[in-house]
Amino acid sequence: MAIKIGIVGYGNLGKGVHQAIGQNPDLELVAIFTRREPGQLEAGQAGVRFEHISSVEQYKCQIDVMILCGGSATDLPEQTPAIASLFNTVDSFDTHAKIPAFFDQVQTAAKQGGTLSVISTGWDPGLFSLNRLLAEAILPEGKDYTFWGKGVSQGHSDAIRRVPGVKAGVQYTVPVQAVIDQIRTGETPELSTREKHLRECFVVAEEGADQEQIRETIVSMPNYFADYNTKVNFISEEELKSEHAGMPHGGFVIRSGVTGAGTKQIIEFGLKLESNPEFTASVLVAYARAAFRLSKEGQIGAKTVFDIPLGHLSPKSAEELRRELL
Amino acid sequence: MAIKIGIVGYGNLGKGVHQAIGQNPDLELVAIFTRREPGQLEAGQAGVRFEHISSVEQYKCQIDVMILCGGSATDLPEQTPAIASLFNTVDSFDTHAKIPAFFDQVQTAAKQGGTLSVISTGWDPGLFSLNRLLAEAILPEGKDYTFWGKGVSQGHSDAIRRVPGVKAGVQYTVPVQAVIDQIRTGETPELSTREKHLRECFVVAEEGADQEQIRETIVSMPNYFADYNTKVNFISEEELKSEHAGMPHGGFVIRSGVTGAGTKQIIEFGLKLESNPEFTASVLVAYARAAFRLSKEGQIGAKTVFDIPLGHLSPKSAEELRRELL
Repeated sequence: MAIKIGIVGYGNLGKGVHQAIGQNPDLELVAIFTRREPGQLEAGQAGVRFEHISSVEQYKCQIDVMILCGGSATDLPEQTPAIASLFNTVDSFDTHAKIPAFFDQVQTAAKQGGTLSVISTGWDPGLFSLNRLLAEAILPEGKDYTFWGKGVSQGHSDAIRRVPGVKAGVQYTVPVQAVIDQIRTGETPELSTREKHLRECFVVAEEGADQEQIRETIVSMPNYFADYNTKVNFISEEELKSEHAGMPHGGFVIRSGVTGAGTKQIIEFGLKLESNPEFTASVLVAYARAAFRLSKEGQIGAKTVFDIPLGHLSPKSAEELRRELL
Repeated sequence: MAIKIGIVGYGNLGKGVHQAIGQNPDLELVAIFTRREPGQLEAGQAGVRFEHISSVEQYKCQIDVMILCGGSATDLPEQTPAIASLFNTVDSFDTHAKIPAFFDQVQTAAKQGGTLSVISTGWDPGLFSLNRLLAEAILPEGKDYTFWGKGVSQGHSDAIRRVPGVKAGVQYTVPVQAVIDQIRTGETPELSTREKHLRECFVVAEEGADQEQIRETIVSMPNYFADYNTKVNFISEEELKSEHAGMPHGGFVIRSGVTGAGTKQIIEFGLKLESNPEFTASVLVAYARAAFRLSKEGQIGAKTVFDIPLGHLSPKSAEELRRELL
């Protein structure tokens, strides 16, 4: 019998989850919950049930796991505890500094509801966190580095678009290759985030706008660009649409450590993603399977990627996993 | 209170475990068990207790986890079940095809003994297995590749040394860079192990031996070299000692998959190790911590890396992990 899934929120991430469920025959989509008018969404998606988010409680007996696809700024701090009191949930809450408080809140809600909630999964937090932990536990004497990119940063792209004279634009965070190469040889330099990354902007200027003025405004923008090496490229609207419409991302977690008498050992995990939301969605879907299984085992409360045996992510049995993948 | 560790077997792996315990303040080495004469080993190692393996049972109440450092061919099939009936254990049994049968045997012994045994950990099987599972669960439509090297293969080095006229030698398994590059771009070629790896030999010939004859014997050796691209380099005994005395190894697990409508996503995990046994030892030590914790939770029986939450590998509390590493 398939695991019954609900999706809350139908932006890029929710759409990605919808697609990913289609790649996993042991999962079945029951309904998508939205704040928008469900009828309008349904018209464009034959065979998919959309419901207004206010009707979520009516599905209590029909859904095994709710995958929460809202944003971390305002949606999830409210939605996860509320929905976790009724359903097993999975979310991608990614405001690192607020994770401990968020965990406590969800823990309380899920324990009261007798449900299980996997919080803060995806790739960072998520797979990158797993790899930071793994590498640190195995190489306690060492140093690790997380690099992000090359990928689109939504916050920085928004900042560019607020500059006077800018019609449209996108910003890529780019890891500094020379620094990565240095670490891969076993060196362990002290580096701030800004020394590890460049910022590259592709900007469409309004007709007649002063490009030099725009460039100057961008590169000197505090918090966003002033402390980084920033490159601004002016392009046409057509080029922006054809070359920069995707949402690629990725990055690396590298730990360089020593064992014995100074023996160098390097552990590296990397992602190269053509679509950040589709990949994050695929991680959420695998953790939805794990949430269902943990819940069936009788576990309740908030969980993170650190608490979950990886075998629970796979549709295969423990025996199959030992035979085929160990 | 420190977790009390015993080591069984004092070859390269056992020595690596000994060193790794020194890097982990929450672990304490109680004794090293050997088939050799303990007194001789103790003479060279001030402050370390060596015992003959026959006295293992006397330590039943003094050791929390035994780390088994014997070989997979003959030692572990016998030692793991025997010792698992008395102690929690961790081993690196790596004969992939025999893992299911080995698991069943250890499962029976550990359940009877009320102990917990982590089998087949290290890096392959072990960390590579975790990454094969993770990548397959997240990207069900895709293909994964495991590459080994550049690293020393003990079996192939032994085969070289049996060739008439060869005084000494070492063989490196080398992954084919062009193939790795192809996969990193998102292509998913069908490849056999032999298309993914080269074999490079460094050979010291006996004085007056026919080098061309040696080369021919090596490259045409069935099972070991005949089906591979094999390169044979003749070097001096001095060069062999100065340049090829280490035991480096490493490799990659790469999965190239698609989400949505053909969106390419790549997950890669890699290791670059100056010492294979020291790194494997470090993995065993982290899993010894996990074995102790699982046992304290009341779990018994055989476990693999797939069954263990990664949080159990770290000396940090769940709260610290959420705050610092998530």
